[in-house]
Amino acid sequence: MAEKSVYKHKVDPQEVDFTLHASVASMTRTVLQVAGNDACGKGFGVDSLQADNHTWVLSRMAVELDSLPRQYDEYSVGTWISDYGRVLSTRNFTLEDASGREFGRAVTQWAMIDMKSRTAVDLSWVGDKHSEAVVDIPSPTDKPRKIRAVNPTREMEHRVVYSDIDFNRHVNTMRYLVLMFDMLPLELVACGRPVRLDVHFLHECRYGQTLIVGCEMQERGAAFEVRSDDGTVAVKAQVEWKEE
Amino acid sequence: MAEKSVYKHKVDPQEVDFTLHASVASMTRTVLQVAGNDACGKGFGVDSLQADNHTWVLSRMAVELDSLPRQYDEYSVGTWISDYGRVLSTRNFTLEDASGREFGRAVTQWAMIDMKSRTAVDLSWVGDKHSEAVVDIPSPTDKPRKIRAVNPTREMEHRVVYSDIDFNRHVNTMRYLVLMFDMLPLELVACGRPVRLDVHFLHECRYGQTLIVGCEMQERGAAFEVRSDDGTVAVKAQVEWKEE
Repeated sequence: MAEKSVYKHKVDPQEVDFTLHASVASMTRTVLQVAGNDACGKGFGVDSLQADNHTWVLSRMAVELDSLPRQYDEYSVGTWISDYGRVLSTRNFTLEDASGREFGRAVTQWAMIDMKSRTAVDLSWVGDKHSEAVVDIPSPTDKPRKIRAVNPTREMEHRVVYSDIDFNRHVNTMRYLVLMFDMLPLELVACGRPVRLDVHFLHECRYGQTLIVGCEMQERGAAFEVRSDDGTVAVKAQVEWKEE
Repeated sequence: MAEKSVYKHKVDPQEVDFTLHASVASMTRTVLQVAGNDACGKGFGVDSLQADNHTWVLSRMAVELDSLPRQYDEYSVGTWISDYGRVLSTRNFTLEDASGREFGRAVTQWAMIDMKSRTAVDLSWVGDKHSEAVVDIPSPTDKPRKIRAVNPTREMEHRVVYSDIDFNRHVNTMRYLVLMFDMLPLELVACGRPVRLDVHFLHECRYGQTLIVGCEMQERGAAFEVRSDDGTVAVKAQVEWKEE
């Protein structure tokens, strides 16, 4: 049976915030890039699915970071798929610093959709055809947690612009996270304490739509809800920093 | 005498827009990263200047791109300093694709400032101390052109947020460009025609300020003016696409 695949990464100046540590959003971006590269390398990436007009869509995500690396630090991302269901596949990650200490982990759940109808397709065939890619190691932390109703204490409007969109003219996954973190007090978002982030992606938003990002400040973090101008909830998320 | 230094770059998924070509802004980011890396490697980067509480500040920039590389394309950036004045040093760039064809070029002018007083310092000493780094090759295109008064036909407000700021809590150079390009029609900004961009950085903007980005549409492009909420003009820019 297969083992984790490991990818090296070096923190680039454009990934750091004003503290010169990688931002939580940029760490998440790296994790998602590793997912894409690993799937491509193993023959079931978006490139191979294109022929059938299918693509992977991120449905839920949980990311835990005990600390944040500094600019130019090197770390490695281990990734493996622990299971394929009919609707969701689970891809896991562990992050280790240069000395081999685990400082972060993530669990992501992906659906496969038909690019024309934008509806989910049965992905059991991937599990059958690529069973050698399934690794018998459990997820390194809780799967993405349920996010209860969000009661925003602050709202921000954002019109979807050129720099927000992916090749489908939908808002790039990462942009939602950046918009959310931008609503938090600077002292909190850059506090450097251990953090856990849970995100559910529910609907896609398109170029030209206006998003309402609602933020509910909580005792140790915040909950977020992104709605598009037709009232649809597009994304829900929760972020929680540990007390020191 | 020294020669151009050459750095390889591969277009990463986060650099491309919905056309799967690198955006003009991301190409500019790469050019500026090469500048930083080259200066550091030669002993006059921001890291070496920190001891004296000095840093480099980009004053003016001209970028010409005849075409835009696609995702995963490799290209190389050649860079050299052609002169050091008392106030500005000129750093040049040529961009070549994998076959060695030049597809872009840039001229940047940098001041050195004292980080406490935020005022320019005489940088002739760099030219003396690092004269071996000056290369006797002229700039590959016109230096950054004068930008006349801008009469905005559209304005957009932007509050400076966490993801905008650099380690000094000033707005990152790149963010201004992203904000500007986001005001243009999608068909123009992603038209792929040869483009020239001129930017003047006049004042720094800080976390929490509100910026007004004014855009004046012109026959073949647009002119921009970014003002902060105290009325100061922070950045002026002009972008022009060639007719096909």
